[in-house]
Amino acid sequence: MAREFVLRRRVQFHETDAAGIVHFSWFYRYMEEAEHALWREAGIRIHPPDTDIGWPRIAASFDFHRALRFEDEFDVRLTVAGMTTKTIRYSCVLDKDGETIATGSMTIACVTRKPTMRAIEIPADVRAKLQP
Amino acid sequence: MAREFVLRRRVQFHETDAAGIVHFSWFYRYMEEAEHALWREAGIRIHPPDTDIGWPRIAASFDFHRALRFEDEFDVRLTVAGMTTKTIRYSCVLDKDGETIATGSMTIACVTRKPTMRAIEIPADVRAKLQP
Amino acid sequence: MAREFVLRRRVQFHETDAAGIVHFSWFYRYMEEAEHALWREAGIRIHPPDTDIGWPRIAASFDFHRALRFEDEFDVRLTVAGMTTKTIRYSCVLDKDGETIATGSMTIACVTRKPTMRAIEIPADVRAKLQP
Amino acid sequence: MAREFVLRRRVQFHETDAAGIVHFSWFYRYMEEAEHALWREAGIRIHPPDTDIGWPRIAASFDFHRALRFEDEFDVRLTVAGMTTKTIRYSCVLDKDGETIATGSMTIACVTRKPTMRAIEIPADVRAKLQP
Repeated sequence: MAREFVLRRRVQFHETDAAGIVHFSWFYRYMEEAEHALWREAGIRIHPPDTDIGWPRIAASFDFHRALRFEDEFDVRLTVAGMTTKTIRYSCVLDKDGETIATGSMTIACVTRKPTMRAIEIPADVRAKLQP
Repeated sequence: MAREFVLRRRVQFHETDAAGIVHFSWFYRYMEEAEHALWREAGIRIHPPDTDIGWPRIAASFDFHRALRFEDEFDVRLTVAGMTTKTIRYSCVLDKDGETIATGSMTIACVTRKPTMRAIEIPADVRAKLQP
Repeated sequence: MAREFVLRRRVQFHETDAAGIVHFSWFYRYMEEAEHALWREAGIRIHPPDTDIGWPRIAASFDFHRALRFEDEFDVRLTVAGMTTKTIRYSCVLDKDGETIATGSMTIACVTRKPTMRAIEIPADVRAKLQP
Repeated sequence: MAREFVLRRRVQFHETDAAGIVHFSWFYRYMEEAEHALWREAGIRIHPPDTDIGWPRIAASFDFHRALRFEDEFDVRLTVAGMTTKTIRYSCVLDKDGETIATGSMTIACVTRKPTMRAIEIPADVRAKLQP
């Protein structure tokens, strides 16, 4: 069962900007890195070679409470917050030394790319492995 | 008066991912590029050299409706949707050939960095130039 | 004839780092953005949908002479410096207000991806359009 | 003594491009991530808060031999290849499962930023800690 995942991460220099802090666009990447690590831990792959199934993001948001700086170590706490037949919703908290840095959420949809992109039901094995 | 701004943009190859579409983290950068272009057009600078004033993002979100692909041309439509004494809120629509690609919003705060980071009132000239 | 191309570009905030200047990894992206603009101007596409032909980079280098900062406007001057039967070599100069910022080069190879990736001869139309 | 460093790394989805492989600009970031990890292991910091000393990159190059794909695990092997009074040169090899993916090099200079940017001698402690 893999409904929650904690990714430990360190800020890299190329992730900072001229204000001396992590550029806000990186938080969405941190959230996705944690998502993919959660899937790996659950024994499933979100983007295997030669698949026609994809998982586009349909919404993503963050509230930013504190800044992250070069070399900071922090945790990305990702939770499977809900599922419908065709979508998965995650909630996410970034914290560092017990302080909340940012809180976010992301919703993804299951689609087939062939013949054209359209939403389909989440495969049973993915549902079983991510079910809270 | 600069309350609305349209940035015409083309998708670059390094902005795409292995799913063949623009990675979702890029939409937040497109929104910020439009914001900075709006400020320039209004005759103000969001990050001049040697300033103690900064404009950290305190929230940002997107709903994604359609994908963008390599070399697509699209518009980023940014609007100053609201202001409080210390914050500015933008709304944003990306469209391509008359179709809505994504809709988003972003809230930024005015802060001083010295002696420590804290929220301050938006300077009068910035308020005047961005006021809808 | 499209053997040389000048891309005018402005530094975006997300391209800067905590040293207050453009992160060096961006210069390689600037060079590639100019390459793709050169191909478009020549009437050819480097990554059309559903192609089996690809153009992986096999070498890229830069010497950095001066820094670029947020909102700087600069030029990326790209030249087709040479071709073999299977590779193309570009040289590149970035300058700003008459000062050289960086000089670089990049070599790409023509490959087919099916059945497995291997080098092939550059198609005649691409050769003709890029020939100096 | 910290003259060599191996960074184990996994390819993240946002590092791939529409050709299905890691975008070549990322290799320069992988090399820099290994550099900063080497400095940390040596007990020195390349970008501490409130310093006037900086380490701009003055040259960087890569030859690309094989592609990296999403979720690949690979090693970044970084070596201090040489020092002058004011510069440090690294050599770098990326490999995966015993195959060489790419080989590169990078030269950085020691500068002071005040009153204006100019090259200075490498501080004695940095020299001692990085000396092969």
